[in-house]
Amino acid sequence: MAGPVQSIERAAAILRLLAGGPRRLGLGEVASSLGLAKGTAHGILRTLQHVDFVEQDPATGKYQLGAALLHLGTSYLDVNDLRSRSINWADALAARSGESVRLGTPLEGKVLVIHHVFRPDDTLQTLDVGALLPLHASSLGKVLLAFGATPSGPLMETAPEAYTRHTLVHPDDLNRALGEIRELGWGAEVQEMSMGEAGIAAPIRGQGGLVVGAIGVSGAVERICEAKGRPQPALITVLRETARAISRDLGAARW
Amino acid sequence: MAGPVQSIERAAAILRLLAGGPRRLGLGEVASSLGLAKGTAHGILRTLQHVDFVEQDPATGKYQLGAALLHLGTSYLDVNDLRSRSINWADALAARSGESVRLGTPLEGKVLVIHHVFRPDDTLQTLDVGALLPLHASSLGKVLLAFGATPSGPLMETAPEAYTRHTLVHPDDLNRALGEIRELGWGAEVQEMSMGEAGIAAPIRGQGGLVVGAIGVSGAVERICEAKGRPQPALITVLRETARAISRDLGAARW
Repeated sequence: MAGPVQSIERAAAILRLLAGGPRRLGLGEVASSLGLAKGTAHGILRTLQHVDFVEQDPATGKYQLGAALLHLGTSYLDVNDLRSRSINWADALAARSGESVRLGTPLEGKVLVIHHVFRPDDTLQTLDVGALLPLHASSLGKVLLAFGATPSGPLMETAPEAYTRHTLVHPDDLNRALGEIRELGWGAEVQEMSMGEAGIAAPIRGQGGLVVGAIGVSGAVERICEAKGRPQPALITVLRETARAISRDLGAARW
Repeated sequence: MAGPVQSIERAAAILRLLAGGPRRLGLGEVASSLGLAKGTAHGILRTLQHVDFVEQDPATGKYQLGAALLHLGTSYLDVNDLRSRSINWADALAARSGESVRLGTPLEGKVLVIHHVFRPDDTLQTLDVGALLPLHASSLGKVLLAFGATPSGPLMETAPEAYTRHTLVHPDDLNRALGEIRELGWGAEVQEMSMGEAGIAAPIRGQGGLVVGAIGVSGAVERICEAKGRPQPALITVLRETARAISRDLGAARW
């Protein structure tokens, strides 16, 4: 069996590089960031440009992501079973809870938001679909970690970022929290990513019972939590009912 | 100067294939569609899977697009100048017109929708960002063709699809329509893609005055058009003001 195709791996690494950080990079920056010879990086960039995966700014000569990726990305959404089976349930959850709802799946040590229903009021909100959330500081991520949808090893080996003074950054604290989530069947994040905000999430299981994603409700801490700082029991109930309903639609046995 | 990297071109062709048609394909289907040996196609698919650009369904062994593309696609939106400079103007246009607003840019002989503001009412609407519209049957596409943002040659050589009995499918009709659009400075599509629907669009110019995209308003034909079937003059005025404002923000001279 042949190994992976090196030029494709390098092309993917360039696209990932352009998706992070400043997002517009010169040839020299691309080459040195990835330890490639300039000629090699140039050949890959020109090919990526040719297939519309990369665009070159005519004024500065810098490279940025290209339009074809947008169509591929939204086509991924169309084919994603977890998302298509969750859409109606997520709408109903937003209506019943009065809060915004997000659906996440693991990607590269983060949580990829694959669906986002706005809080049902008229405030200005930004669509988070396609965004990556940290595993250790989001309720979606903590649930994915707790139920083994993504390995927790790599996170424990590095020092996770402290977004607020409540973020769990010590492996012991995080492990204790994950154990609790497994026992409860749901997880919370209270001001761990952003002061004033909180969220709760529950796992979604696919065929065979494996956790394939998580669904969560989030909003202002005073609406998500009771006075004692614990999530509202009524919110937890409606969230868990939703997660179970989606799991059954995906072919998981009742649990 | 080295030529394009063949394996990257093939990888892009596989992703494009998965984004069209049935969207879940077996190894044999991928190989035969692209005229590749099975071993070659397998090596590319495995690499694409390794970088999360492709997923394999464990039950059927079929391939589909992967989650990493969603993050790359939405990162493209973040870096797109045309979109970021248009967002506030597009919101205002939807509010003033009471209709949905779309922003398009050419991609691979179609119009890629890079922004979509819903019609400001409470009806259920689906986000079109990432969708590809036909050049000859959408107001955005006709404007992009008329102002040379994308070549009309390839379209004229093939037989464009007739979506309704109003779709312009003969090169002479289409050329006459494009000439009119150039003279007027805006373009319309009246029941050419879908019966009962109509749209108008205007070009957006970037630095140097080149047309880089189009912005359009669309909705039910009885709201977009007057009784005689011509677009409402008031809508055209507010649309053209918006297109000019975005163009100035992008660095185009006044025109």
